[in-house]
Amino acid sequence: MADSTRPPTPPGSPRGPEPRYGNRPTMKDVAARAGVGLKTVSRVVNGEPGVTPDTERRVQEAIESLGFRRNDSARVLRKGRTASIGLVLEDLADPFYGPLSRAVEEVARAHGALLINGSSAEDPEREQELALALCARRVDGLIVIPAGDDHRYLEPEMKAGVATVFVDRPPGRIEADVVLSDSFGGARAGVAHLIAHGHRRIAFIGDQPRIHTAVERLRGYRAAMEDAGLVIDDSWVALGSTAPERVQEAVKSVLAGPEPVTAIFAGNNRVTVTAVRVLAGHDQRVALVGFDDIELADLLGITVIAQDAAALGRTAAERLFRRLDGVNDEPSQVALETVLVPRGSGEIPPPS
Amino acid sequence: MADSTRPPTPPGSPRGPEPRYGNRPTMKDVAARAGVGLKTVSRVVNGEPGVTPDTERRVQEAIESLGFRRNDSARVLRKGRTASIGLVLEDLADPFYGPLSRAVEEVARAHGALLINGSSAEDPEREQELALALCARRVDGLIVIPAGDDHRYLEPEMKAGVATVFVDRPPGRIEADVVLSDSFGGARAGVAHLIAHGHRRIAFIGDQPRIHTAVERLRGYRAAMEDAGLVIDDSWVALGSTAPERVQEAVKSVLAGPEPVTAIFAGNNRVTVTAVRVLAGHDQRVALVGFDDIELADLLGITVIAQDAAALGRTAAERLFRRLDGVNDEPSQVALETVLVPRGSGEIPPPS
Repeated sequence: MADSTRPPTPPGSPRGPEPRYGNRPTMKDVAARAGVGLKTVSRVVNGEPGVTPDTERRVQEAIESLGFRRNDSARVLRKGRTASIGLVLEDLADPFYGPLSRAVEEVARAHGALLINGSSAEDPEREQELALALCARRVDGLIVIPAGDDHRYLEPEMKAGVATVFVDRPPGRIEADVVLSDSFGGARAGVAHLIAHGHRRIAFIGDQPRIHTAVERLRGYRAAMEDAGLVIDDSWVALGSTAPERVQEAVKSVLAGPEPVTAIFAGNNRVTVTAVRVLAGHDQRVALVGFDDIELADLLGITVIAQDAAALGRTAAERLFRRLDGVNDEPSQVALETVLVPRGSGEIPPPS
Repeated sequence: MADSTRPPTPPGSPRGPEPRYGNRPTMKDVAARAGVGLKTVSRVVNGEPGVTPDTERRVQEAIESLGFRRNDSARVLRKGRTASIGLVLEDLADPFYGPLSRAVEEVARAHGALLINGSSAEDPEREQELALALCARRVDGLIVIPAGDDHRYLEPEMKAGVATVFVDRPPGRIEADVVLSDSFGGARAGVAHLIAHGHRRIAFIGDQPRIHTAVERLRGYRAAMEDAGLVIDDSWVALGSTAPERVQEAVKSVLAGPEPVTAIFAGNNRVTVTAVRVLAGHDQRVALVGFDDIELADLLGITVIAQDAAALGRTAAERLFRRLDGVNDEPSQVALETVLVPRGSGEIPPPS
């Protein structure tokens, strides 16, 4: 596990010098700013009667200018309700997120908190809508698997004290804690494994190029090929949707023509599943290494670069609760190592 | 698809004659009960100033006695927020729930609503806590895959207008819409298939007996055996946790001894996965039919009774939105048919 602190904010960054976490404005700050007593602020915040419209307006203005947010954890505990954290997933139907979600849930439970999930269905607007809806429903913290690449919409929430950790993919245009797998290193190792078994013409079939993990894994493929002094033919690389029809086309395409590839590196579990199906009906034996482990891959003899989805979820959740406990250091990035699991498909030699 | 209306509430039921859905008490009803004007009720509900403590108390009492609940959909739309529905899953890590969740999400999106999930992690207390937390966070409706067998805790919420649909398993001790697969019929067909291929000694390995689907599938197994005039040896039936270690023990046990079974019916996807692994290392060929389809089962030649998880989710969500649109008929139960998918493992004959 590599734990590298991100570089400091560059000069000219729109973010002010105030720390992102902790240091939340209090009711006292609001009272001082509005020039009223603490009781009056409390009345406004809790919607109690006995405040004139004019005073209420001044208090509301102070609340907005300070970015004050009622301390919901404390309030929630007083009312006997449970603290909660939100998890914004990218795709509910992708089995990769099952163990990740479950691990987040277990950490949340150990901290006496409820977990509420939602899915962006790979749509950046939907991600934003969902994350803000969870904030509006007063989650204490957020774990986000991003679909989009601009997360500035979360800055007001984070400044107001909603602890936020990104997992699986980094956030865009903001700084925050992030927990990833080492996609670059994993793909590089997987492709080097194919090269070590004699392959020279190796395809890379991956997810859409706007997705961070797809780009990092492609970078790992290119690095391994370059390490071995191999030149990549453009026709060997296919990025795009992981829908079965698209992947099927891509696999058939790299296997066609007079000089087909002899091995395929599949960029994620969705690609691997379809590639395995196509290769099962192909007359030549073709080597395959896939990024992500798959259920029953052991019985099918599929060699994979395994990520530890549960460790991703657990690490992200632990980081979140550290923030909620008041730890206030700089946001950092953690990259979890991947493991090469040889099971047969990655050890098939090229035709002699 | 069989759509059978449930029997009417028996006499002496604690539920009053008022319909469960629609017919929500309004602010007008609260005002009449409290003997105040509509504006005063609105002030109390929205936490606005200008109400005396005594009046506020009377309004709060009227709210509680009527079970009034602010019409959040309307309010939410006014504030530009999105309507939302909650989905209480039973296990986040079970891939069966992926397509189900995704289908619910798609229907919700078509209705302009957000979906928020949580998981009970198979714990009835956790289910209750989560369902009520979602209600407290003002979901407009709930879809519940129950872990527990007593759902009376949801009655006040349902009476107050939170539309509720159960899916995959029926609710306990309340009446509500429910969408299931035909577990009894599916298991009966699967075991009959094994009998048709010559098997007489057939094991049933299933989930815990407190789970409705486990009981129904066992009932289907017994019915198929009885249909064929076969007597079941007690040692052939093993219900319990679906943890790999327990299932492994159960499979080994029915394959041991002087008269081992020649075929296994696996009660769900978790059981099938472990059974396939054990059978792969067994020296005799043993037939296997599993309830639930599994990813890559086609390549492994596993015969299954397939449920349509997406159809379960879609049907439940459509039923929920029908309720939210004001349809107010009696709660009903829908049982979706299952499909036998022969792929090889279920067609292995007994040793001659």
